[in-house]
Amino acid sequence: MNSITHYLHNELPRINAFLEAQTARLDPVVRPAAEHVLGAGGKRLRPLLALVAARALGCTADPYPMACSLELLHSATLLHDDILDAAVMRRGRAATHVEFGRTGTILAGDVLLALANRLVADYDIPRLNAVLSEAILRTVTGEVMEIANVRNTAMSEERYYEIITGKTAYLFQGACECGAILAGCGAATERAAHDYGLNLGIAFQLVDDALDYVSPSEITGKPSGGDLREGKMTLPLILYLRTLPPDARQKLETRIAQDDLDAEAARAIADRVAASGCAEATRDAARGYATLAAQALEAFPASPERDLMADMLDLVLSRNK
Amino acid sequence: MNSITHYLHNELPRINAFLEAQTARLDPVVRPAAEHVLGAGGKRLRPLLALVAARALGCTADPYPMACSLELLHSATLLHDDILDAAVMRRGRAATHVEFGRTGTILAGDVLLALANRLVADYDIPRLNAVLSEAILRTVTGEVMEIANVRNTAMSEERYYEIITGKTAYLFQGACECGAILAGCGAATERAAHDYGLNLGIAFQLVDDALDYVSPSEITGKPSGGDLREGKMTLPLILYLRTLPPDARQKLETRIAQDDLDAEAARAIADRVAASGCAEATRDAARGYATLAAQALEAFPASPERDLMADMLDLVLSRNK
Repeated sequence: MNSITHYLHNELPRINAFLEAQTARLDPVVRPAAEHVLGAGGKRLRPLLALVAARALGCTADPYPMACSLELLHSATLLHDDILDAAVMRRGRAATHVEFGRTGTILAGDVLLALANRLVADYDIPRLNAVLSEAILRTVTGEVMEIANVRNTAMSEERYYEIITGKTAYLFQGACECGAILAGCGAATERAAHDYGLNLGIAFQLVDDALDYVSPSEITGKPSGGDLREGKMTLPLILYLRTLPPDARQKLETRIAQDDLDAEAARAIADRVAASGCAEATRDAARGYATLAAQALEAFPASPERDLMADMLDLVLSRNK
Repeated sequence: MNSITHYLHNELPRINAFLEAQTARLDPVVRPAAEHVLGAGGKRLRPLLALVAARALGCTADPYPMACSLELLHSATLLHDDILDAAVMRRGRAATHVEFGRTGTILAGDVLLALANRLVADYDIPRLNAVLSEAILRTVTGEVMEIANVRNTAMSEERYYEIITGKTAYLFQGACECGAILAGCGAATERAAHDYGLNLGIAFQLVDDALDYVSPSEITGKPSGGDLREGKMTLPLILYLRTLPPDARQKLETRIAQDDLDAEAARAIADRVAASGCAEATRDAARGYATLAAQALEAFPASPERDLMADMLDLVLSRNK
């Protein structure tokens, strides 16, 4: 894990410099919103994954435009997320569009989407664009599906996995796959990169959803139970509902469906979900996907970057914020 | 012109069938907004241009996915336009997001953008994606520039041309250029297709802006002077302001800058702009660009499609709605 910290320490300034150079050239109408979302100090997980995967597979081309295009896509979805119907999302924070206006925010998202596509098109490798546009299509479809199922207490576990694969894992998969394509490795290793990214992405989101029920607000900056208040049917909640006797389950489902939980009530229920072991069970599920990702890595040739990719799995599983 | 009508009569059903098949597969959350914008009976000018240019240059590949991707991009910008700050745009019509919700409208736009990129990526010709993402980047930048200059009465004619080239002409250019790339013609003819599309697009928007000052509302469905009320500094208005004595000019500029024109006042001023000959002068400018487009066409080999492209110039110049 220390090696990741070291790698990040070297790479973050380069990734950030590339992103800053891209946004510096944008029109003043969209630049503030774009700079805000890109400057918010993200973990740069997606570009980092793309870089490491490309290098692990012997990439000789300049990987930064490709790697950073993933962060631009991710940022574009964050910007547009901020403008979705308040009644549906209710994120409980000052949205970008409040600060920068709806126009600047929407158009900044569109500009970042187009910029990402153009950066990747400049490589003259058509499959890069195919993978990227497919990833963004699936990401948006995942978001759409999540929104369509807000407060749907009858939602299945299968649908939950479909949603998190869509909204999160495809972009992780796209990052690793683009790295492999840029490296020009064979189809088998490319498939392994695809599998690693997909499973890592699912594990990442599972841990995220578990953390929402256990992480004290001092660490995450948000009170636990936020997903519950927003009516998001994530795995800890799905598992917890199953543990309840029919009456209690019915009662809680009705409160969720009718948006009848204030912050205090949500926090109390979140504590019960955590105490029931359902958040930990969600982390266990994440471990299963991390194992699949680790197996996919075995098809990679031995290299320091492959080791980093293995370390990244531990990092994702162990994070507590 | 009759030949265009005939061509359209044959092609419109195919273009529409392709677009319907694409939207039919979308998630129910975004499908209504996507179907609404794509089903609104557009002229399908962009896909038609792409088809005709591709065929004029001997394209043997299936041109429909490429051609229709241009309509998807155009529709995506229309969807996002609808959500821009009401205070800035004020389009005076029921926006898509009122009918389908902001979430469905924003995400539908994102889905159409990604879908367009993916359709084009499937050709395995990287330059198609480069041209397309550049076109959408410039289109959004043009919109951004237009918004930044609303009620800016000091805006120059040069800036006006930059705006209409951005928001309209680059997508026309992209359509023709993609057609040429798909046809695999040489660089010189590709450049000619690029020039034809760009100049046609500029002419198209000039005529559009002239029509806003002269077309009776019974024909266009909107009262004349709409751009004036929205504070858009288009060429007829820029030219008209120059004809006024300093005092009158200052007075009108202040009213525009302060959004101090109701429908009646705007209509009265629009009539004066039309009577001054400034709308007709704008049409004259369009003729100049159509001539440049016609010159570019001379690099095309003789074909029925080249004749159609010449007819299209007349159609754009002569339209009165």
